[in-house]
Amino acid sequence: MSEERTASRFALRHVKRLKAYQPGFQPRGDGWVKLNTNENPYPPSPKVEEAIRSVSGEALRLYPDPASSELRSAAARLHGLDSANVIVGNGSDDILNLLVRSFSTASDSAGFTLPSYSLYPVLCGIQGSGTIQVPFSRDIELPTSEILECGANVVFLTSPNAPTGVGFSNAALRALIGGFDGIVVVDEAYADFAKENAVELLSEFSNLVVTRTFSKSYGLAGLRVGYALASSDIVATLDRVRDSYNVNRLSQAGALAALEDQNYLDAIVGKIKRTRDYYHKELSSLGWFTYESQANFLFTEPVDRSGETGPEVARSLFEFLKSRKVLTRYFPGHALTESFLRISVGDEDQMLKVSESIEEWLKDA
Amino acid sequence: MSEERTASRFALRHVKRLKAYQPGFQPRGDGWVKLNTNENPYPPSPKVEEAIRSVSGEALRLYPDPASSELRSAAARLHGLDSANVIVGNGSDDILNLLVRSFSTASDSAGFTLPSYSLYPVLCGIQGSGTIQVPFSRDIELPTSEILECGANVVFLTSPNAPTGVGFSNAALRALIGGFDGIVVVDEAYADFAKENAVELLSEFSNLVVTRTFSKSYGLAGLRVGYALASSDIVATLDRVRDSYNVNRLSQAGALAALEDQNYLDAIVGKIKRTRDYYHKELSSLGWFTYESQANFLFTEPVDRSGETGPEVARSLFEFLKSRKVLTRYFPGHALTESFLRISVGDEDQMLKVSESIEEWLKDA
Repeated sequence: MSEERTASRFALRHVKRLKAYQPGFQPRGDGWVKLNTNENPYPPSPKVEEAIRSVSGEALRLYPDPASSELRSAAARLHGLDSANVIVGNGSDDILNLLVRSFSTASDSAGFTLPSYSLYPVLCGIQGSGTIQVPFSRDIELPTSEILECGANVVFLTSPNAPTGVGFSNAALRALIGGFDGIVVVDEAYADFAKENAVELLSEFSNLVVTRTFSKSYGLAGLRVGYALASSDIVATLDRVRDSYNVNRLSQAGALAALEDQNYLDAIVGKIKRTRDYYHKELSSLGWFTYESQANFLFTEPVDRSGETGPEVARSLFEFLKSRKVLTRYFPGHALTESFLRISVGDEDQMLKVSESIEEWLKDA
Repeated sequence: MSEERTASRFALRHVKRLKAYQPGFQPRGDGWVKLNTNENPYPPSPKVEEAIRSVSGEALRLYPDPASSELRSAAARLHGLDSANVIVGNGSDDILNLLVRSFSTASDSAGFTLPSYSLYPVLCGIQGSGTIQVPFSRDIELPTSEILECGANVVFLTSPNAPTGVGFSNAALRALIGGFDGIVVVDEAYADFAKENAVELLSEFSNLVVTRTFSKSYGLAGLRVGYALASSDIVATLDRVRDSYNVNRLSQAGALAALEDQNYLDAIVGKIKRTRDYYHKELSSLGWFTYESQANFLFTEPVDRSGETGPEVARSLFEFLKSRKVLTRYFPGHALTESFLRISVGDEDQMLKVSESIEEWLKDA
């Protein structure tokens, strides 16, 4: 292929400048304890496999339902809303993208807190839109007045927060959403692990969008399904921007089966929360500051044998764990994250492996 | 949900004006002869179902390979290219969207011929980008000089054309691509049914993008997978704009199995082409002008009992067929399409049903 004239010179200026989102490392081969992307350590409801198997080749030759109607209805029922208040996406990332495309340009910026889900600025970069970053302080309390005054047209809030796991109360969210002159997106990827969620606020605020995913609590990261709950006119707006066949037949069928098995969800979420809370104590007993988590991960500040914390220490543990085939996530480059590691909550055997590896590191380091 | 303040007022100006793409009607219930969205009348290779069933629930809990690497490699092998020349999308619509987002703005317009795939202007509308429409004349010969002078930064060309089915020769494409100062996207959704395709031109032109889909020849419209072939720097650009997990595990596995069963593809495509060419004669024998099709559909100009053609006649047949549970596609509002119907090529029984219904209509009309 001739590369004499590189054709990417025709790309838009802001696209030429883009750096791609870095998804968590996906190891090949067996033997890894994979605690780096907040996947569920347990498989999805067995009803998901059944539902997927029931989609025949004969059915696959036909386009999917463009509206994912059955899934919309089921999600609406689950949350006590109407179908017109639900939109389904190819992962909640798809919906976050639709929100950026609908509400954010260079002049109508998108706002988000720092730290939070690192995809928001990437989506804004692709859109060529302005971004307004509102920093947290170390206590990760909602910087309500700073957000209210930030001037963004749309604000993204990960709640519970990532990567810290800190949850926000509906009382705090109410003050923010009610006062904000624009769209507030509460990204509830981890809400099933939290004490509260913002769904009840939808009846109060027409400028609120709540996003959910099947990738975490439902154990279906490989299926790519998420949804949003919002006022019907926001849903109608997003529907005009989305790809008409954004969710395929298998994903619609699998996600529907998962959603309808709430008993299974409750059992799995219960197990993960118990492991999380037990492991929080374990890390605290090492003297490591660890945020109270309302998600399926723990954000902890490692202390080495000499009693030191800091970026060097965190990176050293990250690399050591990786050498032991334990994958966690390290976020350098920000004062509130660079001395921490994020560890997804795995099953008990996996957490035991983490503990053993930490013990080894403490001896070696 | 309070709608007192409709929150969609925060949407971007061009988004407020959007009309959504109208996908072909998806009937519920049985008994329909569905020839309106160019789906394959035959199911996909049985190896697809096998591959999908081999993806366990345990695998679904993990994120998919963000790059769809195996599928990229397989497509590269099939076309004699390198993996770096392939990008995989959630349907080829996903890739068309990435192309609009990478290369088209209000000032850097996107061009396309009329008629062609009606999604292009929809994608430009969502992007808020300018569009330049280059009309065909009735012979659907490539308007090369008009395209060369149209001033667009990126041009989309459906080849074989939709909805007429007319194919363009590589000689004609060569003159266009070589002379065009921008990106030429040759949308080859129907290329497996054609005499020629543009893949060999990739070695000559770095500004060429060829898109393919699994929705037509592979019989996998329900799976949402497509791909593009292009110079490595265009692929790298599109990779930065796409969602990092755009294709789920089941779709990657199913599409790979389909791609690797080229014998099955050849057999199915052969059957459809035979039916198409036989049915072209059938329509011609009624005295109906029908374009020579290199796709899996026929675009025909119905003549009623009184020897009339025109929009009224075409619409009358469309409605009559629908009343007989035969779905075809009618495109009003354009001089070159409004007197025609597009009929997807079905299996022999389905085409017999079309013939019987046409006979009835000719008696009734």
